[in-house]
Amino acid sequence: MDIENFKSQFQADIKNSIPSHSVDCVVIGYAQEKLKILTLKFKNTEFWSLPGRFIEQEEDMNVAALRVLEFRTGLQNIFLEQFYTFGNTSRSDKKQMNAILKKVGISSEITINWFKQRFISTGYMALVDVNKCILQSDIFSESIEWKSIDDLPIFILDHKEIVSKAVRHLRNQMNYLPVGITLLPEIFTLKELQKLYEAILQKPLDRGNFQRKILKLGILIRLEKQLLGKAHKAPYLYKFDEKRYTELLENGIGFVS
Amino acid sequence: MDIENFKSQFQADIKNSIPSHSVDCVVIGYAQEKLKILTLKFKNTEFWSLPGRFIEQEEDMNVAALRVLEFRTGLQNIFLEQFYTFGNTSRSDKKQMNAILKKVGISSEITINWFKQRFISTGYMALVDVNKCILQSDIFSESIEWKSIDDLPIFILDHKEIVSKAVRHLRNQMNYLPVGITLLPEIFTLKELQKLYEAILQKPLDRGNFQRKILKLGILIRLEKQLLGKAHKAPYLYKFDEKRYTELLENGIGFVS
Repeated sequence: MDIENFKSQFQADIKNSIPSHSVDCVVIGYAQEKLKILTLKFKNTEFWSLPGRFIEQEEDMNVAALRVLEFRTGLQNIFLEQFYTFGNTSRSDKKQMNAILKKVGISSEITINWFKQRFISTGYMALVDVNKCILQSDIFSESIEWKSIDDLPIFILDHKEIVSKAVRHLRNQMNYLPVGITLLPEIFTLKELQKLYEAILQKPLDRGNFQRKILKLGILIRLEKQLLGKAHKAPYLYKFDEKRYTELLENGIGFVS
Repeated sequence: MDIENFKSQFQADIKNSIPSHSVDCVVIGYAQEKLKILTLKFKNTEFWSLPGRFIEQEEDMNVAALRVLEFRTGLQNIFLEQFYTFGNTSRSDKKQMNAILKKVGISSEITINWFKQRFISTGYMALVDVNKCILQSDIFSESIEWKSIDDLPIFILDHKEIVSKAVRHLRNQMNYLPVGITLLPEIFTLKELQKLYEAILQKPLDRGNFQRKILKLGILIRLEKQLLGKAHKAPYLYKFDEKRYTELLENGIGFVS
């Protein structure tokens, strides 16, 4: 789609959207032993944002969140949870938005007026396997990237606060969220699983204790070793027993503290 | 305020409000060993609703929720927590709203058009001491009442679902919410405290176990008995140690299971 078509499509979209309300998604992944957040950089600026969008008049809010995620990551059936709605007046910053619209090349009055509104935004947290994502930017964005939670860029508006709140939600609700099964690749070692939990909790866990407790839950299936070459010296590989995992999750998988 | 003044005030209010968004409050109290929900009955109808309102352009969303609560209960400094935002298209019911507006005597086009919008609503849960509330209805409401959660009236729109979700949130987050200190009167017996927890969890708890665990937490201050008449046979009375209670709450007060 060329830029003029994209712009007129965007104008049609906002005409068909609910005023004053948006969704913003904190897409959480895991790589290099760190939690990662999906971020977009506005063209010709130093400002980054979360993937978000407006809600069509005839669209459920949850569907709006799923649609932006599908567009940005190429994934369907993403694990998604609403965690908070941000409704302070201070979250609007017309000056900042005007400057960004100018930089990215938007001059239509309809679009500029749309962004002059005060928006309330509902935050959704998604958990994804970064290796499965096919990231997609758009003509307003210079790039779309995974950023480590300890090295986040400069965000527009209150998006930094939205990320913090999502990460707190992940930590507090960890036992009730499918963290292992969504964030890890299908096959993993016990050490990799422990590293994931350490990244979420931001503290080291005792190895023996962790392994004893997690094996006791019966949510892991140990794969047979391939006895070729040095492979017999490699650590065991595991995958999740999805049925058992889902059953346990309902009452919380509380095996680390 | 007479009815015509109230109506024109209402019209001025909606002109000054954000379109498409409202707040609805699930005000939870406790009496007669049951959890109670604050409800309003629309004049000349059999429909009830939760206390709610629209959000002024220059008002934080949380402040909008506090203001409706202050108006309805007379209380300031209420414990209030946002728990979910309801954004399905199916939650609008223009036919039902039209019928209710007619019954309560609203005929202004501005008001009728306002209610024709699709609304997204953010749900807030409040915990209050029913004895401290001074309830206030308005010219659209026939009455304002506490209803037991096992005997709720017919609600408008999705207000029944909003209540269910709030009660689930209360149960799931019980250990992190100041349930005892907000819902009970200042002075209470151990039996009364146990009954409150049983009402929230909807199951009986073992008396000995409950008392042992709660006393161990050090959040209760036992009052001296008044040794007059039969009072020395009465059970001990307690109040909460607010400082210790607040400290413990941060990491969860997990003494019942």
